[in-house]
Amino acid sequence: MMRVSIQLRYNDLDLRGHVNNALYLTYFELARMAAWERVAGPVDAEFILAEARVTYVSPAMLGDVLVVEVSTREVRTKAWVWAYRVVTEGDGRLVAEGETTQVMFDYEERKTIPVPADLRARLLEI
Amino acid sequence: MMRVSIQLRYNDLDLRGHVNNALYLTYFELARMAAWERVAGPVDAEFILAEARVTYVSPAMLGDVLVVEVSTREVRTKAWVWAYRVVTEGDGRLVAEGETTQVMFDYEERKTIPVPADLRARLLEI
Amino acid sequence: MMRVSIQLRYNDLDLRGHVNNALYLTYFELARMAAWERVAGPVDAEFILAEARVTYVSPAMLGDVLVVEVSTREVRTKAWVWAYRVVTEGDGRLVAEGETTQVMFDYEERKTIPVPADLRARLLEI
Amino acid sequence: MMRVSIQLRYNDLDLRGHVNNALYLTYFELARMAAWERVAGPVDAEFILAEARVTYVSPAMLGDVLVVEVSTREVRTKAWVWAYRVVTEGDGRLVAEGETTQVMFDYEERKTIPVPADLRARLLEI
Repeated sequence: MMRVSIQLRYNDLDLRGHVNNALYLTYFELARMAAWERVAGPVDAEFILAEARVTYVSPAMLGDVLVVEVSTREVRTKAWVWAYRVVTEGDGRLVAEGETTQVMFDYEERKTIPVPADLRARLLEI
Repeated sequence: MMRVSIQLRYNDLDLRGHVNNALYLTYFELARMAAWERVAGPVDAEFILAEARVTYVSPAMLGDVLVVEVSTREVRTKAWVWAYRVVTEGDGRLVAEGETTQVMFDYEERKTIPVPADLRARLLEI
Repeated sequence: MMRVSIQLRYNDLDLRGHVNNALYLTYFELARMAAWERVAGPVDAEFILAEARVTYVSPAMLGDVLVVEVSTREVRTKAWVWAYRVVTEGDGRLVAEGETTQVMFDYEERKTIPVPADLRARLLEI
Repeated sequence: MMRVSIQLRYNDLDLRGHVNNALYLTYFELARMAAWERVAGPVDAEFILAEARVTYVSPAMLGDVLVVEVSTREVRTKAWVWAYRVVTEGDGRLVAEGETTQVMFDYEERKTIPVPADLRARLLEI
């Protein structure tokens, strides 16, 4: 599991004073980039995003310090699932949780490819 | 079913020239606001977003004219599910599809409430 | 002068219910893209943005229908200035005004270049 | 002068791989919020944004670590000017600079008011 702190922006909040629903995918993305940087290392590989899901548990507001926890839920032949939890720093209140599915993709050949063995091993460490 | 056209913004696109994954929730929201305006009418009611899901089918690029189609998939006691399809105008290529779950909420009492009967009827017309 | 309608997004609004200050540069950009599409036509040329300025006159809120008017204020040797006015459709209330300076740029040679004569002529028609 | 680090988001970057022009106002806002938190302290006061200006000096890209420096340029009777510099951490390359003008505003009375003496003193310390 990896933890990534989020710097809230004033305009992440909507009229009601809550973080807008779409922003959680952006927060997931910040965690995903950090996770990818750790696991991709020497692998010359890329992925495409196939699916994303968010469950909204409690609203986040200005002043909340948010942390995204990302972990690998499952690695399939050509894809893997990352799970996310957005919590407040300090009291650890759960704000949202969700997951995204990534598919290994060869941009030159324009086709999906299997997850390389060494990447699979590193994915399972998160 | 309702159709809402989307005005793409230059910065909706990311480094690869594709609409960023988080933006689809914003496009869903534009369709949801239009749908809500149609069904909420005389009902003094509000909802909270409980869940969102997006499946990415094909990338959207600068120059694509996108339309979001929204329809009611299911109405439960206190909640309903809206389904979305993002397609390109003209050739109707499917770009993304997904759904969101809305829960009726009384902001004064701070609690979930049943979907009013007349709202239910109008929801089922979409 | 050209007029471009803006599709407001729910999250363009901040806590106070006003369109967030940074969004106006995004609205200017929407008008700028439309203006560029009209004038660039057969010219194989590109520009970089050198400067932007916004004056906030009155807040825009949910329900306001905004239009950006863009016109060419000045064409210099290697640059030109576009002026913008953001107004509400209907009553024409001025919401914001501003300008941006564009510099002709040759991305291959990585240097600024003069504004071509035919582009200059078309710029002056806006 | 105060320094605020910026957490870049993947979608801050546009097609060319450069931070989009509108984002700089968002970065200024992050620095402005931090500066306001420091100076407003016990003062029960608020401001409205009257004007913003950005000069784009060199593009910021993925991997750049950006810092915004904010300082008070001028305090007038009812307003003050904050100046901003966006630089890369490490080599201190100037990416953008600009300024914003804030006007003291009484939201209850709906009118501009003078900058309180103690706020003026703290503004001048930045």
